[in-house]
Amino acid sequence: MDNFIYHAPTRIVFGRNTVSQTGAELAAHNVRRTLLVTGGSAAMRTGAYAQVTASLDGAGVMHTLFSGVTPNPSLDLVEKGIAAAHAFAVDSVLAIGGGSVIDCAKAIAAGVFLEDYWAQVETRRPVTQALPVFTVLTLSGTGSEMNEKAVITNEPLARKWSLSGLCLCPRVSIIDPQLQSSVPWHLTAAGGIDAMTHVMENYFRGRTARAATGYFQEETTLQLCEGILRAIIMSLDELQRDGSDYTARANLAWAASWGLNGLSGSGLSGGDWTSHALEHALSGLHPQVPHGEGLAVIFPSWMEQVCHSVPDIFTRFARTIWGVSTAEEGVAATRQAFSRWGAPDRLSRWSIPASDIPRMVQNALSYRALGRIVPLSAEDVTSIYTRVL
Amino acid sequence: MDNFIYHAPTRIVFGRNTVSQTGAELAAHNVRRTLLVTGGSAAMRTGAYAQVTASLDGAGVMHTLFSGVTPNPSLDLVEKGIAAAHAFAVDSVLAIGGGSVIDCAKAIAAGVFLEDYWAQVETRRPVTQALPVFTVLTLSGTGSEMNEKAVITNEPLARKWSLSGLCLCPRVSIIDPQLQSSVPWHLTAAGGIDAMTHVMENYFRGRTARAATGYFQEETTLQLCEGILRAIIMSLDELQRDGSDYTARANLAWAASWGLNGLSGSGLSGGDWTSHALEHALSGLHPQVPHGEGLAVIFPSWMEQVCHSVPDIFTRFARTIWGVSTAEEGVAATRQAFSRWGAPDRLSRWSIPASDIPRMVQNALSYRALGRIVPLSAEDVTSIYTRVL
Repeated sequence: MDNFIYHAPTRIVFGRNTVSQTGAELAAHNVRRTLLVTGGSAAMRTGAYAQVTASLDGAGVMHTLFSGVTPNPSLDLVEKGIAAAHAFAVDSVLAIGGGSVIDCAKAIAAGVFLEDYWAQVETRRPVTQALPVFTVLTLSGTGSEMNEKAVITNEPLARKWSLSGLCLCPRVSIIDPQLQSSVPWHLTAAGGIDAMTHVMENYFRGRTARAATGYFQEETTLQLCEGILRAIIMSLDELQRDGSDYTARANLAWAASWGLNGLSGSGLSGGDWTSHALEHALSGLHPQVPHGEGLAVIFPSWMEQVCHSVPDIFTRFARTIWGVSTAEEGVAATRQAFSRWGAPDRLSRWSIPASDIPRMVQNALSYRALGRIVPLSAEDVTSIYTRVL
Repeated sequence: MDNFIYHAPTRIVFGRNTVSQTGAELAAHNVRRTLLVTGGSAAMRTGAYAQVTASLDGAGVMHTLFSGVTPNPSLDLVEKGIAAAHAFAVDSVLAIGGGSVIDCAKAIAAGVFLEDYWAQVETRRPVTQALPVFTVLTLSGTGSEMNEKAVITNEPLARKWSLSGLCLCPRVSIIDPQLQSSVPWHLTAAGGIDAMTHVMENYFRGRTARAATGYFQEETTLQLCEGILRAIIMSLDELQRDGSDYTARANLAWAASWGLNGLSGSGLSGGDWTSHALEHALSGLHPQVPHGEGLAVIFPSWMEQVCHSVPDIFTRFARTIWGVSTAEEGVAATRQAFSRWGAPDRLSRWSIPASDIPRMVQNALSYRALGRIVPLSAEDVTSIYTRVL
């Protein structure tokens, strides 16, 4: 088990009707005036916006709306949000949404202290100052509600890169699974698959097993990863039968939060993240690709590419997650589950031409964490894309 | 899944030689003068004390020693520590030890702001003010390095009760598994069993399974609990073969920290804690009983008492933890594992007379959380003790 630091200080308020506690939570953190960051009309349609503002009003917290955040939020949007935060002199940001909205809110929170947001991203150094961030989660998957990362797309550069910093960890995240009861199935599935891949990008960095006992170097982390994965899989299966199932929504939400808050990578030297690099290269160039669906296409192709190079961990995965025997069967079972949940399995879903692959490969290779489990050449990365064209 | 709040803000610095970072971590939190709280000679003998003080000296952090903390630390000792904290005008406390030392340090940290420590305990209300707490962990089990609780024994009243409060969560805990390499096997086993029972006190509050799919209401939490339990069991088995095994020490330490930081009880309404109540009643009256060993005796007896009343969860436990089929077989496998690890299985180990049972029963029944899974009468509690006399 490699050395690590684990620090996820976010306070989680979880459960039915917890959205009504939003105002009290912000007031307890001395918030007086917050920037409410939301996406399109979903927060209005579902009533989440009305419930949050009623709670803020009740607690005497002033708020001003910055709406219209899109999936794969752009630098352009972040800059507009920073201007709004300055104009209204807010002391905090409150995201109502899923990962895109939360990431945009985090970027705004840091951006008010930066001269040039993207210049900071390119330094790859953590930020040390940001407005306090709060979230009301309406779509589970990214785990942004409990971590220190914000992923923003620079469309002119076709780059989807993250900024991080402990100050970006939300002070409080409200996870009220009822707010997700009307999320359409394809978004529910994409969120669940996204969360699974967060765990798997770490998990497969597990080392070889001890021959005598099957004990792995990072046994504790691997056991926890397996628990999170099984919980997501079972909860997705329940939700595919009945999307209004509160219990399954709650379990999916709680498992997804643990996918990317540091625990699933503890002792694994930060995981690998090749599939995320390949997906970010894809959706950075084609922002119409939903992150979770892009991963559903790429992850099994990456598994197929590397599973024979690290057989112990892929065999363990096959056995503990799917109840099958071989690494190949584990890869096949993963692909079948993604298909059963209706996720795309080909880049052709978004009419990506083969001629785009060289640019995506070049972009993917610029990610630092690429190929940690198994080193990958430009040719290997090309194969991963081409296999699922 | 019931509503819950999860908040474990402690920064964990984990791994080889991390003890050398102690000074820098405290300095980063603006510590200038700390009270170093330790137990007997172990911290001196193992070199932990020397390494910590060298690190503090290197970072310019002043320190004064308060040593001699015993297992099941007493109120008397806490009061001496509070006096020392005042006398040296420290701005923080730094525990070097296991759960007893950390709990004593936490109690001192809160006590400097209280007129009467025990009066606060008896209110059962959380404390809101304490000196910042830091820890260097030298024995894994209690989970105190990552939670907000301190358990102290009032010997005249024979009561072992806890104080809690977010301000008691350590700011930073250094978990350097090398510091545990010379922990004797019986203490290693007792710590592991203690951690297992923290998970199990929560776990068995899991509800009934859905008949069609076997899906539980708290599926995510139960999956995580099972992962922690399996990691502890496997790591103890490895350590019983070779106590100097760094990897197994590291995995045991990391799993134990997750036994009692809120995660294992999330959605389970705070768990049950009957066995802890019975053990606290036991070691409150007989402080020579090590907490983990007391639990090794009591927990299987409690399981035997209640397993037929909540068959779904006990059957799941039998299957997922021990690979056996029935609730009874799961109880037997738990008892066998504790025995295989050399833990006591009878109160006679400490010459507890049957005549003490009524007083222990009376004390145990005063715990609020007793009998949440299955209600227990004084007669039932008497049976649990008597079965293992």
